[in-house]
Amino acid sequence: MFGTKKQSEETNHPIPESNAYQYKRLNKDEALVLFVDHQAGILSLVRDIEPVEFKANVMALADLAVYFDLPTILTASIQKSPNGPIMPELKDKLPKAKIIDRPGEINAWDNEDVVKAVEKSGRKQIIIAGIVTEVCVAFPTLSLLEAGYEVFVVVDASGTFNELTRNAAWLRMQNAGAQLLNWFAVANELRRDWREDMPGYMEFFKRNIPAYKPLVDSFLK
Amino acid sequence: MFGTKKQSEETNHPIPESNAYQYKRLNKDEALVLFVDHQAGILSLVRDIEPVEFKANVMALADLAVYFDLPTILTASIQKSPNGPIMPELKDKLPKAKIIDRPGEINAWDNEDVVKAVEKSGRKQIIIAGIVTEVCVAFPTLSLLEAGYEVFVVVDASGTFNELTRNAAWLRMQNAGAQLLNWFAVANELRRDWREDMPGYMEFFKRNIPAYKPLVDSFLK
Amino acid sequence: MFGTKKQSEETNHPIPESNAYQYKRLNKDEALVLFVDHQAGILSLVRDIEPVEFKANVMALADLAVYFDLPTILTASIQKSPNGPIMPELKDKLPKAKIIDRPGEINAWDNEDVVKAVEKSGRKQIIIAGIVTEVCVAFPTLSLLEAGYEVFVVVDASGTFNELTRNAAWLRMQNAGAQLLNWFAVANELRRDWREDMPGYMEFFKRNIPAYKPLVDSFLK
Amino acid sequence: MFGTKKQSEETNHPIPESNAYQYKRLNKDEALVLFVDHQAGILSLVRDIEPVEFKANVMALADLAVYFDLPTILTASIQKSPNGPIMPELKDKLPKAKIIDRPGEINAWDNEDVVKAVEKSGRKQIIIAGIVTEVCVAFPTLSLLEAGYEVFVVVDASGTFNELTRNAAWLRMQNAGAQLLNWFAVANELRRDWREDMPGYMEFFKRNIPAYKPLVDSFLK
Amino acid sequence: MFGTKKQSEETNHPIPESNAYQYKRLNKDEALVLFVDHQAGILSLVRDIEPVEFKANVMALADLAVYFDLPTILTASIQKSPNGPIMPELKDKLPKAKIIDRPGEINAWDNEDVVKAVEKSGRKQIIIAGIVTEVCVAFPTLSLLEAGYEVFVVVDASGTFNELTRNAAWLRMQNAGAQLLNWFAVANELRRDWREDMPGYMEFFKRNIPAYKPLVDSFLK
Amino acid sequence: MFGTKKQSEETNHPIPESNAYQYKRLNKDEALVLFVDHQAGILSLVRDIEPVEFKANVMALADLAVYFDLPTILTASIQKSPNGPIMPELKDKLPKAKIIDRPGEINAWDNEDVVKAVEKSGRKQIIIAGIVTEVCVAFPTLSLLEAGYEVFVVVDASGTFNELTRNAAWLRMQNAGAQLLNWFAVANELRRDWREDMPGYMEFFKRNIPAYKPLVDSFLK
Amino acid sequence: MFGTKKQSEETNHPIPESNAYQYKRLNKDEALVLFVDHQAGILSLVRDIEPVEFKANVMALADLAVYFDLPTILTASIQKSPNGPIMPELKDKLPKAKIIDRPGEINAWDNEDVVKAVEKSGRKQIIIAGIVTEVCVAFPTLSLLEAGYEVFVVVDASGTFNELTRNAAWLRMQNAGAQLLNWFAVANELRRDWREDMPGYMEFFKRNIPAYKPLVDSFLK
Amino acid sequence: MFGTKKQSEETNHPIPESNAYQYKRLNKDEALVLFVDHQAGILSLVRDIEPVEFKANVMALADLAVYFDLPTILTASIQKSPNGPIMPELKDKLPKAKIIDRPGEINAWDNEDVVKAVEKSGRKQIIIAGIVTEVCVAFPTLSLLEAGYEVFVVVDASGTFNELTRNAAWLRMQNAGAQLLNWFAVANELRRDWREDMPGYMEFFKRNIPAYKPLVDSFLK
Repeated sequence: MFGTKKQSEETNHPIPESNAYQYKRLNKDEALVLFVDHQAGILSLVRDIEPVEFKANVMALADLAVYFDLPTILTASIQKSPNGPIMPELKDKLPKAKIIDRPGEINAWDNEDVVKAVEKSGRKQIIIAGIVTEVCVAFPTLSLLEAGYEVFVVVDASGTFNELTRNAAWLRMQNAGAQLLNWFAVANELRRDWREDMPGYMEFFKRNIPAYKPLVDSFLK
Repeated sequence: MFGTKKQSEETNHPIPESNAYQYKRLNKDEALVLFVDHQAGILSLVRDIEPVEFKANVMALADLAVYFDLPTILTASIQKSPNGPIMPELKDKLPKAKIIDRPGEINAWDNEDVVKAVEKSGRKQIIIAGIVTEVCVAFPTLSLLEAGYEVFVVVDASGTFNELTRNAAWLRMQNAGAQLLNWFAVANELRRDWREDMPGYMEFFKRNIPAYKPLVDSFLK
Repeated sequence: MFGTKKQSEETNHPIPESNAYQYKRLNKDEALVLFVDHQAGILSLVRDIEPVEFKANVMALADLAVYFDLPTILTASIQKSPNGPIMPELKDKLPKAKIIDRPGEINAWDNEDVVKAVEKSGRKQIIIAGIVTEVCVAFPTLSLLEAGYEVFVVVDASGTFNELTRNAAWLRMQNAGAQLLNWFAVANELRRDWREDMPGYMEFFKRNIPAYKPLVDSFLK
Repeated sequence: MFGTKKQSEETNHPIPESNAYQYKRLNKDEALVLFVDHQAGILSLVRDIEPVEFKANVMALADLAVYFDLPTILTASIQKSPNGPIMPELKDKLPKAKIIDRPGEINAWDNEDVVKAVEKSGRKQIIIAGIVTEVCVAFPTLSLLEAGYEVFVVVDASGTFNELTRNAAWLRMQNAGAQLLNWFAVANELRRDWREDMPGYMEFFKRNIPAYKPLVDSFLK
Repeated sequence: MFGTKKQSEETNHPIPESNAYQYKRLNKDEALVLFVDHQAGILSLVRDIEPVEFKANVMALADLAVYFDLPTILTASIQKSPNGPIMPELKDKLPKAKIIDRPGEINAWDNEDVVKAVEKSGRKQIIIAGIVTEVCVAFPTLSLLEAGYEVFVVVDASGTFNELTRNAAWLRMQNAGAQLLNWFAVANELRRDWREDMPGYMEFFKRNIPAYKPLVDSFLK
Repeated sequence: MFGTKKQSEETNHPIPESNAYQYKRLNKDEALVLFVDHQAGILSLVRDIEPVEFKANVMALADLAVYFDLPTILTASIQKSPNGPIMPELKDKLPKAKIIDRPGEINAWDNEDVVKAVEKSGRKQIIIAGIVTEVCVAFPTLSLLEAGYEVFVVVDASGTFNELTRNAAWLRMQNAGAQLLNWFAVANELRRDWREDMPGYMEFFKRNIPAYKPLVDSFLK
Repeated sequence: MFGTKKQSEETNHPIPESNAYQYKRLNKDEALVLFVDHQAGILSLVRDIEPVEFKANVMALADLAVYFDLPTILTASIQKSPNGPIMPELKDKLPKAKIIDRPGEINAWDNEDVVKAVEKSGRKQIIIAGIVTEVCVAFPTLSLLEAGYEVFVVVDASGTFNELTRNAAWLRMQNAGAQLLNWFAVANELRRDWREDMPGYMEFFKRNIPAYKPLVDSFLK
Repeated sequence: MFGTKKQSEETNHPIPESNAYQYKRLNKDEALVLFVDHQAGILSLVRDIEPVEFKANVMALADLAVYFDLPTILTASIQKSPNGPIMPELKDKLPKAKIIDRPGEINAWDNEDVVKAVEKSGRKQIIIAGIVTEVCVAFPTLSLLEAGYEVFVVVDASGTFNELTRNAAWLRMQNAGAQLLNWFAVANELRRDWREDMPGYMEFFKRNIPAYKPLVDSFLK
């Protein structure tokens, strides 16, 4: 079509030679989840998303990591500080996650243990969320992009002071090439086809989307 | 002007050699409309646009497809599931549309029938709308852009959970080269000149824009 | 003070003779909880509160009813209709609640079984929540006020189409003498003194207020 | 209960002697609908509700008047003026309505024909909506209250310049004793019991509430 | 009707004996306009209404005072202070207004010159606007109500720090019996009948309502 | 005027006999300030006002108490609990305030020490602020009103979860007769006349209103 | 600096060779103002900016065109149609402007007279504003960019249906290389130095910025 | 990794050869702070951020400049004009800053003294904030980008008329390559590692983030 010569790695469809845009698409064999500084103290600063909804989003992303069995890293900035410990329910939900307490580095990518853990995983797609968006998410996102990774920022599992602050951070990350999306888009881009696990995926939705649950209940009946 | 050598395909005006930007403009002989997952169940998740207004926008886009006699595809994600059947009024409005129920593929462009239907039409400009914006619209939009199509996302006939989610999806699609616009812009970019059908186009506006109707009534009197 | 002669029933403090205002204060031995039409179908209409937060509020009110062991009524409007069944998680949470499916009456107070259940309880303070606010909450609220009950409308466990609709309903109920408050105010007005159950009440808060949980965790450590 | 002696006219339940509040409840044999100045010119001033949604609300109120066969008055302020003619679709929807063009009176209750039409109907409950809220609705509402009528202001079928203006008008009318509610509350307070007309009432909802329609479709299937 | 015996002073319609509510309606022979502290310095504090729109509202109220030839008082709080001089365009617009610079009293009604000026006018209906709403408007409003005047607060020609502050002030004044309305409602309640001055009133609207002007232009043509 | 016989206690102006409304006006010899539960832990729950602005409002109210030398009470709910200690800067600002740590009572008026401290002061006007609005402010407000006090709720020095919760609490308190206002209105109602302390009052404004400071600076120069 | 070799055309400062970004800066000898479809009928559709403020912005842009004596074009889409005539006050303000009534072309750049008028002016910087943003502004903006012009979209003198529609149009134009700014930025980028006309420029601000006027008045005194 | 050959200047990690994106990261030895036109008169125009919060943000940025001992420039546009003098508290906070009063140039980069001061510092990273955003910030930002500097716009210490104006300015600067962020992100990108000054940095946070202070207090205890 349109004199195509290349072929999409993802879709097996031909891509026109002249087309600069390549869809960097999440793949469950290439992705890793990085939770940055979801700590009790910092959590209290989040005001751009309501607390109940924010916690639900963070837990849904954790549930997603479990459901797709993705390698997962929980990193924190000095848990023994005003920043506080990692949210206990997040640790409980992710028993297999690697936990890295950074002794001082603000940008998680400045910490060698984080870098090594990511490199060791062999994954090149990083799904990232954190508190606060413009620091704990934006800094490693920009570093990871520079290092050649594909970065997917989970905007609704990331929180910060207010919308002004958030919007500036989004534009800074967008300009650098990060892909902004919510946990629901992450899940669907990884899942790709309902037929791979119809019942399990429906249960995953029921657990995490109150507005979808009645539809499932009604359908199953 | 300014040492121009190229010529705009659309306007027959010369374009300066050095100008990187080319206006990809909708053309009623090149465009196709793709409705993705406007299904009863998923519809109940839409909360970024009021239900009455959202439905009016979707129906206006359908009316537009009929008015310009554009090839149209209605695709759905497993109608026999909690997602539910395609909105019946949409099907009624578009009797000539091709209907494709995808058995599991979340990204409509992963479904061979959708790809074939688009390719068979010979159209290279895709007008797309769907629910929810960051999945059912964004995924095929990114795939279509990679495949070399020009993609026009109809933002007001696409709905999702909330504004945060929508804004992230917009920035992701914008970065990939999609053009974001409302159904009213689509109509006018296709129509181009009132003189091609003054009375019919005025009627089209009257049917779909309550705030414009009194102006027409007043003028005709 | 100020030539007082009356005495507050609640506080044992004298009240000035001339004072028209009497604080109708919730009392755990006088209160009953009435959930009206929290049904799966109607639930999908709620758009003035985000779904995740709304569900959390409804469940917190149910948890409150259990915690204080208050007589509780769950009533629904024709469960076998588009309105749908009562939210199953609400029924599960409240195994001792009386469930009344009204065959047609829109105002729950028009249903004799509801009236009898309330009267039989001997309670005169009604804590009410429902969907949608201006009908399923407002109608029985106005009827209960006319019948001489004290009515406490739990505004954050009640949902409706949008804020305009909600605000009008609030003013209508306020004018009639209803007291508007959130589930958190209900809990505290019932609890009155932390010393009655310090550990249990703290757990109740941890379960239902994500922003309070880290404070408790930090304190207990 | 509580030493009651009076009896509610509406519910046949006893009311405590000392209770000052009486629920003035809509009754389809007592109610009349008054549309004030829904004229093409004035319509263009409405900016507190989106045009598509506002028109839908006005038409739903008209549909309600037809469904319950209520006496209906359409009054206008000098149709042959910049205010413009009554919305034609409103007139078409209400063929039996009495139409009164006021030659100059701004407050509809200053017009003798309006007063006579209301008095002749024998109705004492006035359901009113109009444009703009703080003038065309508020003025006759205050006059009707003074004259002893029960007034029900349909807030979502009434429009004005902006929210500031609207909120002030609401408080002024609330203070005078008007009941503020939306067309959906009006319908349900009139209907009272689904069993009086289950299929017809469901159809009425389907026509006027896009978010309810899929529930009905799904249930009927 | 309803066994009426009283008669409305305003409408000449009978009023039921038992009706507590009396419509206090603006009358151009009873009303006086009181502008409080529209001073250059204080003006810079207004942030609940955009500056362009706020100034337009204040000037429209002044135009109204001229159009209806109402007695008008411009009072200021220490013009030779950080509060600054009265807005010069307001003074220019109202050459016949009495100007009273209060040497220190914050509540304008504490100033004897203001009291005398109001009493001398013989007017009992006070149309008031000022900056800031919760002080310069609310204080004299409460004093005037106590003194037996009917008070009409022009909410859109009054400004303050933010909406929270404004809303509290509105509820305080509402509770005391003030009537809240915008300048447009004031004009129409005074005008009552277009026939008293059709061309002049239309010109008044054209000057002050940009959205109404095209309607007049179109009609006159 | 209007056949007056009574005389306003405050203004020395006659009040008409028939006038039900009496302006309860703050008086610096009658007022007491009550800070309820401005504690570090509870503070982190406030989300209806931005943290920087909220703290500034609380400190401005404290500055006001100092400036007018009003008797002041700081009460807290179990400082040794997750609620945390009273904000240290508030204690530092108010060295003369009486501090009462309630061992368990949620409603501060249920605590005998608070009641005694208020009664001992001989003050009948209570200026109250606290966290959270619908509990720590609303409960003692309702109790104080019942006990015959005049209550002035400082809305901008009181915080809570969100606007929905706040609005409900406001309406509940308004209905009971509380006067809602911001700290700026409190200051001006107490000050009454600039001439009592022109330089000091200007300094008070400079310290607490950033937007007023440049006006003072400019004037003094 | 940084090994610079180029020199900025505008600032006479050296620019680093490798720097891709060139500041396209407005110049009063290169700029032309293009008003598109500010017509009475279309004007009534604008709802993303309040009418009073929108009109003030449009008139400020016209005042700017006069003040800088810029070549100006007023174009309209079929004035004898429901779209209505060009706003008369705009024509009055711009007596020297060229007026072009397009007989049918929706995109103003499709009209040969508009193209000729722009080309004849010899200007390469187009300052554009219009109604509605996503059609009458966006279409010619994209065409002008393709034709090699520098385009400056005056966002506050352009209006449309709502914010969703506007935001999509902004992103579409941003992607194509348009510069988005308000009339105030246009004025300052053209003026560059106060010393060129201190008194005249101050007057220009006084006329068009109500919030700046008191500063000027105060300074001049 | 991924066939990398380059090495990040900042992180010492290899960067893939083909990667176009380079993270321009703030470095305390390369950065300079430029405050533009924080003048008393212009300050009164700011309405997109509340005055208390805006001032706190500006002072936090100044505190940051002091804390990191960054070269700092305070420039103003004609202090002896309606624009007014530089905020005195800003000058007091920054005694070592270079102060440049521009006699007329609107774009600070058009002023030779500003250019020389920046060049003399040898710094290539410019942290900029100012009033108003679309002029005093955007103009020098675009000039500095053209001149090859890295520009970091501190969005929350920059203010303007309203959000519409601000959003347009953000997109214009983003398109040119500016990095948008808040003062908190600036501080953390400069600090990089808590271990460099744990106590001092904690104090810096305590002074400037009210919501963080209780966490520090609680931790230290």
